[in-house]
Amino acid sequence: MTLKLYHAPHSRSSRIISQLFEMDLMDAVDIIHVTIPRQDGSGGRDPNNPHPEGKVPLLVHDDITIWESGAIMQYLTDLFPDRGFGAAPGDAKRGLYLSWLYYYGDVMEPVIVHKYAELTHPALQTTFRGFEEMTERLANGLKDQPFLLGDSYTAADLLVHSPFAWFADFTPDVPVIKDWVARCTSRDAATKTMEFDADLMAAA
Amino acid sequence: MTLKLYHAPHSRSSRIISQLFEMDLMDAVDIIHVTIPRQDGSGGRDPNNPHPEGKVPLLVHDDITIWESGAIMQYLTDLFPDRGFGAAPGDAKRGLYLSWLYYYGDVMEPVIVHKYAELTHPALQTTFRGFEEMTERLANGLKDQPFLLGDSYTAADLLVHSPFAWFADFTPDVPVIKDWVARCTSRDAATKTMEFDADLMAAA
Repeated sequence: MTLKLYHAPHSRSSRIISQLFEMDLMDAVDIIHVTIPRQDGSGGRDPNNPHPEGKVPLLVHDDITIWESGAIMQYLTDLFPDRGFGAAPGDAKRGLYLSWLYYYGDVMEPVIVHKYAELTHPALQTTFRGFEEMTERLANGLKDQPFLLGDSYTAADLLVHSPFAWFADFTPDVPVIKDWVARCTSRDAATKTMEFDADLMAAA
Repeated sequence: MTLKLYHAPHSRSSRIISQLFEMDLMDAVDIIHVTIPRQDGSGGRDPNNPHPEGKVPLLVHDDITIWESGAIMQYLTDLFPDRGFGAAPGDAKRGLYLSWLYYYGDVMEPVIVHKYAELTHPALQTTFRGFEEMTERLANGLKDQPFLLGDSYTAADLLVHSPFAWFADFTPDVPVIKDWVARCTSRDAATKTMEFDADLMAAA
């Protein structure tokens, strides 16, 4: 079995690096450093990146290509269920696990981007709802437990907290959410990912 | 095992009804008819719907609640892998299956809503890309095969084609995509779903 991850430091694919550290899989995956266009005008699309839009992350398992962060994260926890970083099919938490993974991309990412870009439209509210509803969902999901699935940190927390790790100002001002984000960002894997990415940037 | 689906006719949850017809599971699931607010001002949020924002679909498996259409569709194909309407863990098509399911909510739904609402912003293009890129992805995925995973119609096709079934005008003017949408909308399950929903509306 071969696993290849196309990765750009300090990007959406850094979440997969964190996941690999959490799952003790850094030695099992060939990490291919590619460039992406950066907000400051540096970087650019990398011809070595097989993603059709030049995005990261992209995972290749033997000859199977997997794109979309949530799909990749779920694929990896399903492939290595013994690493305990998700909820496998048949696990009582499976429904909750899938729901949070999909909710992140279906609702949270659009809602956060719309807020950042200061876009409002009735169709956005009808389809995605808004920041307040998202805040309430997170607060509810965390009100009785330290992490989204219960006592253990999983790929659901890693994905769902990630926008607040990048844009701290967007963290809802609600104690259970702020405390959870602090728990997520203080993981050893988060520190190791920052060091890994800094080394890649320095070597580039 | 009990399965309950909260459903409003002619809505996003109609996709799950189609899936239940495709998988021959209509008798295995208790379908609970709830109202939702409609664009013409009729309907309204249903106090009997446990979804925190009054949305549909919502699936309850024993005491586990699953929300988000993609999560529900994947949960059902994983729960009944012998029905052959998805790709189970370990199947060579699993990566492609997950990627399309996540891509629908991560990219297609935002891109289509942004086009409908005529919203443009550099952050939307950076994050989601646009209608052209989506069209290219679909055309590429279908260029050598009748359905997204190959020869068989699966939950990936059901979810991904659904916006074009509702808003035919949004179907990209590309023969392989138009032919695929026609194959998807002409399924017996699509007809049965329309009849099922019409009966619910008439009885309301």
